Amino acid sequence: MSRDDAACGELEHLRAEIDAVDGRLVELLARRRDLVREIGRHKTARGTPVYVPEREAALLAARRAQAVAAGVSPDLVEDLLRRIMRESYGAEGEHGFRRVLSDPVPVVIVGGAGGMGRLLADLFKRSGYPVRVLEVDDWPHADALLDGAGLVVVSVPIAETAGVVARLAGRLPAGCILADVTSRKRAPLAAMLAAHAGPVLGLHPMFGPTVPSLAKQVVVTCGGRDPAATAWVLDQLRIWGATVAEAPADRHDRAMAVVQALRHFTTFVYGMHLAAEDVDLAEVLALSSPIYRLEIAMTGRLFAQDAGLYADIVLGNEEGLALAERYQERLAEALDLYRRGDREAFRRRFAGVRAWFGELADVFLRESDVLLAQARDRVDHR
Amino acid sequence: MSRDDAACGELEHLRAEIDAVDGRLVELLARRRDLVREIGRHKTARGTPVYVPEREAALLAARRAQAVAAGVSPDLVEDLLRRIMRESYGAEGEHGFRRVLSDPVPVVIVGGAGGMGRLLADLFKRSGYPVRVLEVDDWPHADALLDGAGLVVVSVPIAETAGVVARLAGRLPAGCILADVTSRKRAPLAAMLAAHAGPVLGLHPMFGPTVPSLAKQVVVTCGGRDPAATAWVLDQLRIWGATVAEAPADRHDRAMAVVQALRHFTTFVYGMHLAAEDVDLAEVLALSSPIYRLEIAMTGRLFAQDAGLYADIVLGNEEGLALAERYQERLAEALDLYRRGDREAFRRRFAGVRAWFGELADVFLRESDVLLAQARDRVDHR
Repeated sequence: MSRDDAACGELEHLRAEIDAVDGRLVELLARRRDLVREIGRHKTARGTPVYVPEREAALLAARRAQAVAAGVSPDLVEDLLRRIMRESYGAEGEHGFRRVLSDPVPVVIVGGAGGMGRLLADLFKRSGYPVRVLEVDDWPHADALLDGAGLVVVSVPIAETAGVVARLAGRLPAGCILADVTSRKRAPLAAMLAAHAGPVLGLHPMFGPTVPSLAKQVVVTCGGRDPAATAWVLDQLRIWGATVAEAPADRHDRAMAVVQALRHFTTFVYGMHLAAEDVDLAEVLALSSPIYRLEIAMTGRLFAQDAGLYADIVLGNEEGLALAERYQERLAEALDLYRRGDREAFRRRFAGVRAWFGELADVFLRESDVLLAQARDRVDHR
Repeated sequence: MSRDDAACGELEHLRAEIDAVDGRLVELLARRRDLVREIGRHKTARGTPVYVPEREAALLAARRAQAVAAGVSPDLVEDLLRRIMRESYGAEGEHGFRRVLSDPVPVVIVGGAGGMGRLLADLFKRSGYPVRVLEVDDWPHADALLDGAGLVVVSVPIAETAGVVARLAGRLPAGCILADVTSRKRAPLAAMLAAHAGPVLGLHPMFGPTVPSLAKQVVVTCGGRDPAATAWVLDQLRIWGATVAEAPADRHDRAMAVVQALRHFTTFVYGMHLAAEDVDLAEVLALSSPIYRLEIAMTGRLFAQDAGLYADIVLGNEEGLALAERYQERLAEALDLYRRGDREAFRRRFAGVRAWFGELADVFLRESDVLLAQARDRVDHR
């Protein structure tokens, strides 16, 4: 046996040991999943929320400390546990969720066949509420569907919200809550307050209907009328794992003009530009680092989704349009600087934006570094 | 003891069992780290590359199969193993790297005090090459530093590359390789070919100097002169874990005009816009889902970095400027559509871009969904 053969045998032996360690890891995950299921049964019975921040923080702190003592990277351990816990949050709802109301009221989802409507219907059902769906074709027998309803949730495209709310006017039981899940809040709230004299609740789920669970998802709520009567809906959202963030409707709409209308609009323009230039995407990706792939992916993902949804979000948003017009002015300024090759002006503007971001610039750099490392973990170069 | 107390005790018991499982996980990681160190010693001795795609693929496939058999999510197992392996790649270089050349030549890093220069100097040293640094103040004794050099790597800002290469003209040993690591390739290659009659190699590392290791990082190479003589440098990069992608200099520069000049320019404009609008970032983040936080983070991270570096990349890039001018035209078109609220035109353009992305749109949606789930894992709502 040559020296090389011996070294090769030793390497094979070490790799087999790694495989054995990884195999034990999978066994541990199976054991942990069983324990989490058991905990899920307890939580359902007692109504403890799926996501308990304090428990999660304590668990992570204990394992980080153990990692440091064992000479293992505490960041590695935290990353692994967070990923494992994500899986657990999905599993915890398997046995249903606790119902806030001991005496369940019927819940009507208007637009219950759409993506968000189906998600809400499923969550309410799994929490023991009788759920009825009112779709486009169901209006002839709407009164029967609305009879005795305790909560009516309007889950239809933005452009149709006002019309649907108007059709509900005067048809809801007096104590029934009228709620919506539209991505703008001022106009829908005004429409709901005009259509219904009882409790009114504006909601904006900051996620799409394909999320595996509501754990760590944000739902923004903009008060309408009678918060005491609508509180149980927010409690139910929290039991499903969501974080409820409160904001006045006008501040919500202003923030959304930035994070939705303007952002989607500029992404739309960027996509139009790449397509019109007929950029050689395959070559660009082959020569790129994960950060470029991620940035192009964030553009491409928009176009894999529903054009109508994005037309709804972008078009008809007056504040978004005004922001986009001023974006055009700033682009013109920056292009002027680019044409002149003015390094000093570039640095000055750069420094101004940096100062405006303040400490968040460094926070964002660190955060995105973590994500980019995760993106790189998945890269396969063959 | 009440029923509630009993249930509470049972929950505490289950949580203690989870903690025990997590504790065993940390022990396994410590054991795995020891094995990886041992493998690292073998690889250094035998010169096996740090990152072996086939071994990684086989390892993942075996554990995914075991996971399916055990009723554990195979995606969960793969995510965990990829994260664990990232840590391993960093650890494998601890004992140095194999040197491709049995008879090591002196390596001179021009600009060796900069970030990328320091990274390269460190890697060459850890692989057993004598490393010399030629910095701004060292030019009076440059000839002594260059004496007998086998590889000279120019690692200075783009704007200075041509000048530095000119200063090296006629001073390198005949068989010495002249290489650069600038983010553009046509002009630096032309300058190097004019300055040196021996082997020439254009490199563009697609990562910053702060990467923990070169595993899974891309280095683009654009041939200069005498590929047989420069091959060992590419082999050395592969041993450090990098993937070497070849491209002609003009195609490289065209791709970089898109992924660097245009992309950084539009990000710069977006940051200018947010700052000029004085957007309430704290509120926007509180009301946002992880996708918006990630998008703003990708903007903010630019401004946490060196203004001079980005001025270098954006300004003076003629192709990038032309792309930016045409981007302005497309923005004007899209704004016109926005003003008119033209849903049909929006959908038509949207569909056109979608068709252009082709299958990649769905690939990007899936990829970014994975990353967004990872971003959400780290969210702390208190």
